[in-house]
Amino acid sequence: MWNRNVETFIGCECEFDESDIVMFGVPFDSTTSYRPGTRFASHAIRSESYGLETYSPYQDKDLEDIKVYDYGDLELPFGSSEKALDMIGEVEKDILDAGKFPFMIGGEHLVTLGAFREVVKKYPDIRVIQFDAHTDLREDYLGVKLSHACVLKRIWDIIGDNKIYQFGIRSGMREEFYWAEEHTTLNKYNFNNLKEAIKECEGHPVYLTIDLDVLDPSVFPGTGTPEAGGVTFTELLEAIIKVSKLNVVACDVNELAPNLDTSGASTALACKIVRELLLALNK
Amino acid sequence: MWNRNVETFIGCECEFDESDIVMFGVPFDSTTSYRPGTRFASHAIRSESYGLETYSPYQDKDLEDIKVYDYGDLELPFGSSEKALDMIGEVEKDILDAGKFPFMIGGEHLVTLGAFREVVKKYPDIRVIQFDAHTDLREDYLGVKLSHACVLKRIWDIIGDNKIYQFGIRSGMREEFYWAEEHTTLNKYNFNNLKEAIKECEGHPVYLTIDLDVLDPSVFPGTGTPEAGGVTFTELLEAIIKVSKLNVVACDVNELAPNLDTSGASTALACKIVRELLLALNK
Amino acid sequence: MWNRNVETFIGCECEFDESDIVMFGVPFDSTTSYRPGTRFASHAIRSESYGLETYSPYQDKDLEDIKVYDYGDLELPFGSSEKALDMIGEVEKDILDAGKFPFMIGGEHLVTLGAFREVVKKYPDIRVIQFDAHTDLREDYLGVKLSHACVLKRIWDIIGDNKIYQFGIRSGMREEFYWAEEHTTLNKYNFNNLKEAIKECEGHPVYLTIDLDVLDPSVFPGTGTPEAGGVTFTELLEAIIKVSKLNVVACDVNELAPNLDTSGASTALACKIVRELLLALNK
Amino acid sequence: MWNRNVETFIGCECEFDESDIVMFGVPFDSTTSYRPGTRFASHAIRSESYGLETYSPYQDKDLEDIKVYDYGDLELPFGSSEKALDMIGEVEKDILDAGKFPFMIGGEHLVTLGAFREVVKKYPDIRVIQFDAHTDLREDYLGVKLSHACVLKRIWDIIGDNKIYQFGIRSGMREEFYWAEEHTTLNKYNFNNLKEAIKECEGHPVYLTIDLDVLDPSVFPGTGTPEAGGVTFTELLEAIIKVSKLNVVACDVNELAPNLDTSGASTALACKIVRELLLALNK
Amino acid sequence: MWNRNVETFIGCECEFDESDIVMFGVPFDSTTSYRPGTRFASHAIRSESYGLETYSPYQDKDLEDIKVYDYGDLELPFGSSEKALDMIGEVEKDILDAGKFPFMIGGEHLVTLGAFREVVKKYPDIRVIQFDAHTDLREDYLGVKLSHACVLKRIWDIIGDNKIYQFGIRSGMREEFYWAEEHTTLNKYNFNNLKEAIKECEGHPVYLTIDLDVLDPSVFPGTGTPEAGGVTFTELLEAIIKVSKLNVVACDVNELAPNLDTSGASTALACKIVRELLLALNK
Amino acid sequence: MWNRNVETFIGCECEFDESDIVMFGVPFDSTTSYRPGTRFASHAIRSESYGLETYSPYQDKDLEDIKVYDYGDLELPFGSSEKALDMIGEVEKDILDAGKFPFMIGGEHLVTLGAFREVVKKYPDIRVIQFDAHTDLREDYLGVKLSHACVLKRIWDIIGDNKIYQFGIRSGMREEFYWAEEHTTLNKYNFNNLKEAIKECEGHPVYLTIDLDVLDPSVFPGTGTPEAGGVTFTELLEAIIKVSKLNVVACDVNELAPNLDTSGASTALACKIVRELLLALNK
Repeated sequence: MWNRNVETFIGCECEFDESDIVMFGVPFDSTTSYRPGTRFASHAIRSESYGLETYSPYQDKDLEDIKVYDYGDLELPFGSSEKALDMIGEVEKDILDAGKFPFMIGGEHLVTLGAFREVVKKYPDIRVIQFDAHTDLREDYLGVKLSHACVLKRIWDIIGDNKIYQFGIRSGMREEFYWAEEHTTLNKYNFNNLKEAIKECEGHPVYLTIDLDVLDPSVFPGTGTPEAGGVTFTELLEAIIKVSKLNVVACDVNELAPNLDTSGASTALACKIVRELLLALNK
Repeated sequence: MWNRNVETFIGCECEFDESDIVMFGVPFDSTTSYRPGTRFASHAIRSESYGLETYSPYQDKDLEDIKVYDYGDLELPFGSSEKALDMIGEVEKDILDAGKFPFMIGGEHLVTLGAFREVVKKYPDIRVIQFDAHTDLREDYLGVKLSHACVLKRIWDIIGDNKIYQFGIRSGMREEFYWAEEHTTLNKYNFNNLKEAIKECEGHPVYLTIDLDVLDPSVFPGTGTPEAGGVTFTELLEAIIKVSKLNVVACDVNELAPNLDTSGASTALACKIVRELLLALNK
Repeated sequence: MWNRNVETFIGCECEFDESDIVMFGVPFDSTTSYRPGTRFASHAIRSESYGLETYSPYQDKDLEDIKVYDYGDLELPFGSSEKALDMIGEVEKDILDAGKFPFMIGGEHLVTLGAFREVVKKYPDIRVIQFDAHTDLREDYLGVKLSHACVLKRIWDIIGDNKIYQFGIRSGMREEFYWAEEHTTLNKYNFNNLKEAIKECEGHPVYLTIDLDVLDPSVFPGTGTPEAGGVTFTELLEAIIKVSKLNVVACDVNELAPNLDTSGASTALACKIVRELLLALNK
Repeated sequence: MWNRNVETFIGCECEFDESDIVMFGVPFDSTTSYRPGTRFASHAIRSESYGLETYSPYQDKDLEDIKVYDYGDLELPFGSSEKALDMIGEVEKDILDAGKFPFMIGGEHLVTLGAFREVVKKYPDIRVIQFDAHTDLREDYLGVKLSHACVLKRIWDIIGDNKIYQFGIRSGMREEFYWAEEHTTLNKYNFNNLKEAIKECEGHPVYLTIDLDVLDPSVFPGTGTPEAGGVTFTELLEAIIKVSKLNVVACDVNELAPNLDTSGASTALACKIVRELLLALNK
Repeated sequence: MWNRNVETFIGCECEFDESDIVMFGVPFDSTTSYRPGTRFASHAIRSESYGLETYSPYQDKDLEDIKVYDYGDLELPFGSSEKALDMIGEVEKDILDAGKFPFMIGGEHLVTLGAFREVVKKYPDIRVIQFDAHTDLREDYLGVKLSHACVLKRIWDIIGDNKIYQFGIRSGMREEFYWAEEHTTLNKYNFNNLKEAIKECEGHPVYLTIDLDVLDPSVFPGTGTPEAGGVTFTELLEAIIKVSKLNVVACDVNELAPNLDTSGASTALACKIVRELLLALNK
Repeated sequence: MWNRNVETFIGCECEFDESDIVMFGVPFDSTTSYRPGTRFASHAIRSESYGLETYSPYQDKDLEDIKVYDYGDLELPFGSSEKALDMIGEVEKDILDAGKFPFMIGGEHLVTLGAFREVVKKYPDIRVIQFDAHTDLREDYLGVKLSHACVLKRIWDIIGDNKIYQFGIRSGMREEFYWAEEHTTLNKYNFNNLKEAIKECEGHPVYLTIDLDVLDPSVFPGTGTPEAGGVTFTELLEAIIKVSKLNVVACDVNELAPNLDTSGASTALACKIVRELLLALNK
């Protein structure tokens, strides 16, 4: 009886050794230039997941049938991005080394870089699929290179041209859009060319990074920089299921700011995306 | 001049004896397991209805032309569901006995049971049409049988197989979905098979219960358990107008939690649904 | 170094003399009968515009390439609508006299009257295109003729029949809808007949007034009287671009109540509409 | 059974003819220059009064023993202050003519003028006791004379020097403070000289006007212009009880903006002040 | 490394067997008649405790030096108070049987009954010290005997006259105040007679129940029924330290509704009270 | 007429060259470990200052009589504390070089370090007076030395023992309190020993740093880490006026998080403190 009543994401009560997927939260939003709050996301997602069921009527699958370990949240310093990214990298590496699937919940989008730097070491031939409203391709932001606005540019620094597929993009500087024409595969507004991208990624390991602001603010207002004109929940769900057929080796979900949507609908949606992702990516 | 300036739902100032429809509020959310607040719904709907017009451009009808008595809210004890359901039943029975149409505003979905137990006495051959995001078909919830998560199961206990039509359902336990395949007509996500259901209900009295969380959280975030992937306002409005052609003998609208949507848009939408329902169901 | 760090709408740092468009805010909501807050709109739009980029991927244009002067907000008295309208008119006149395009940000919809009374003096053959959820055609509101609910009727008083085109309308008194059949071109719910309206307006100067509550509350809950069943962001954007091909000589954007949408999504959307309007209307 | 379940202030269910005190709400804040919301006060006070008991342990009195008629709220036009003040005056006059005590709940402080203009007709020798954070002695506000910032100056216009007693004042223009030295009895910050004022008012009819922002924002943040350094609830309660020994012939309580204190504590305090005032002023 | 990052109250990471004090949360507010939300209290207190330090400068003690096990929250059904009270009782009994100090965090005040019914079995000669704004001495509430408004009456049913000491009381029905004169020791508004009560309790085991609404709403607005005129934080802290010198054998802290104070100050204060209580009660 | 309507702190419209005091805002909260939001403080203070009067009845002084230049806000990068501190230092230096008084509005408390490093160059014999709830004397925070929790320790690194006077302190690690006994003059809870401190500082230049969380959360809930048991507004005001008699050469006011107090009372209080400070420090 006296086992502590530990709070995990619903249905993710497996122990580490038996798990296939390892979920961890990264409460970090130190470089967010506009409206902070993504630091609260992983805690809120875990807590509010109890409004969900473990069963997905969309995929006819149930979290009770898969093995996920929820590690909890990393404890990170604010004020030093490099240090925080290193600590994220250590955890990502340990999960990869244990032969498990790392499933990160941000935090601001910069956290992707900490995880990705380890993934690319194990999978040098990696491709990146990004769902996002923003290009995130700035060279720097007021002189700072480790910024959420630059994270895909930093990933490009590592893997180079034509390995990044961007979907749902509808905001960025003119220079970023023009630069992307040469260096990434950028799809404005929606998932129209997802089929082609999936075809090109076949045979490669894939890192999937989902900035939830790819969603329309009508279904997901709880984010720092809401951008009108985004995708619907159903469109995102279908895109996730399609991508999950690829050899996805790591993923992250980021940019929920639960404090910015007091109705709780954004957090509830994020919980559902996490559930569907877990069910889709589990092999 | 010294008649009290009484607050009713807009345009519902008819006296009881002259009325055709009797509206009453049920401020009860005692079994809500997740986020409470539906107790505030009927009060908020009445108060915010003054942001509406009495005229519907959708149906070209006006509340000024129909006869609705707004009784106000029941005063219910919290902490004893059976007692509360009995008190709801008494009011429902009195309205039916007076030959008027009972129009209940919840509250949590459990309140439907209190009303339905009286309706089925008068109309034993009743059919139930449910618009909802959730199955509500649990046998019990942590051992409690009178719970909002079980309300349609309790109704099934009374009327049995193939008399319940469920639309918009997108959340529930695996067992509930599988059980429904044998015992109810469950339509996932939308109103796709509404036409067939209406055909089957022709010639029968119908109880219409609308859990407003059938709507997509983008148009209706103000509810305890928002479920992404729901129907639009226009889809719900059209479904209501279609069902209103049947012999609907009682109805309820429930699960608005006005405190959870501080923008007021959810309450405003609920007001509009109430207006359209009144205009559609009035014969 | 010691130039004050002045806050303008993003990218609108041009000086008055060099500008083509002059933007000004009107923090006035004194006749709002329901939920106030539009007085905060222009300040919020200016401040939150820094979450935007200056570049529009929709039009492939950039605010950096056009010349807009942002005057700031008028200082208006509350409690005297006539006086406030006069002060708005003075500013509108000065902008017109200087040969520049006046771009007003409300405030409640009544402010349109102040601006329009000057525009019609310069352009007697003006046509009015209104995007709105409400008819705004009441003769008076509780005896008051200068009310947001009457603003288009006051404009009709000046220019008469068949010169006002209304789109997106879904709320009003029965009398207003019936009256409109004879006196204005009223399009319910959407932009279906916009093409015809544009054809009829060709060759005339046009005043464009956008009440943002034309948008569906799912994308724009931050307004005093949200009306379900509105248009999407993309539909509004396309309509704006179509209208911008006409000889638009003045415009306004009104009825954002930023306090009513704590997520900030409504304000962010309003910022984007302002950017797109500026880019589309600039000649 | 079918009497409407009408919402009044708790324990104020007496009919007009039998009543001694008549309470009415004035949902008006049209001249509020800063943050609106007092229009919601009377409705909120009535609704939230059910969190109160009818019994006061402070005075050992019970609302069940006194006779109060709660009329509800006036329906007022926004945008025309003069018209609104006239309508307030009509109601105040009718109550006075019926030999009852008028108890008004604002609204912004300007509403006091509407009531006072009638009271002074019946009681020309009236004295005014004001509890407030602000002087409210401006000659005009941006040229408008009927403004909440001018309301005591307008009252002074009627009754002249040395008949107005101001307590708790801690904000105003330098000119107002200096002017008050000659024309009113202004007590800064607190109730220190209340005893003297009461002595001077003995034998005169008294109008008591309570702007709730006299309270410290720590106990009453829910007001448009919170001013640090105010009085405590207990101090206000004691002052009220002392003043109630005078021949108070009319009173008002104003400037609660319930929307600005989402905790509800400000509204709860206002309810308690109303209860205590009713119990103290009842003779 | 792969130990789950479990969230407990700060500094309470001891295992059950080694602990002296066992803390547990009771997320239950099913009988709350007014504004719900205390169900969220224990979770919020645990989560927000990380804004605290473990060290108390008031007592010069540190949580690092004492042994507290934080069990987490009970999982309770809503809609059946008796069942919930039984489940609370089971946990309370197990803690007492293990020779440890039970420290309960509510939830609504009714939860005290579940714990107390077990404590009185072990300590029949118990005294109860209650800090509260409300009498809680109703015989029933709308016919329901297990209600938060009746909890001290239910305790009196068990232990009888002159064993209950009530402090800070400032709200209740007239009948309750008069009844208390004969049956309990009721101290209005403050802790003035605490010294005498402590003297009378010496030599007896004591149950301490703290309804946080004893605090003034200025320091603690986050509760369902805020009552102006309460005690300060410092007064409560001093009272707690004084009572802690007695033989306190069990305690609870209840009625925080974190959702009602969005500033977080109420939750932060509750965290501090819990810390100080743990430090004071530890022997 | 076409001068831009620039928003400054009320009454601070002087140009730089003629000014005696230069105010600037620092929207930075990158190292805040708990709840962010102080980045919004300077903007909110400037905007909400229009709810103030320019006249202080406490000091009988008026902002219209003194010369303050409001520069606006610095534009700072997030994610690099050292860089941000350098940019703050540059501005502070320029103001000092121009012979004017630098008046900084934070932001988190770390920003004080950027300003102080310049002030100490000009005034090596400086003393520091700190009003704060927290010690801020940690050596590092999770390995990071430039953190708001360490800012006074960093200042001590520069000026050494017995030059820092701390007032109102009521939270910190045990080690910090013990360390302070040897190295600073730490006064717990209040201003009791302010007189002695002032005496010791006479003849020295003084840097005054006010962390607004020194105030009790009842008057100032809008801060990241509210600590019960603080000082009142009047106590803080009196302490400020006393300190202003010293040779204060620079100051800052920080840690308002306006987003955390939706009532606006915290921001209004901060505005008033800024006004009183400006009036008191002006020579």
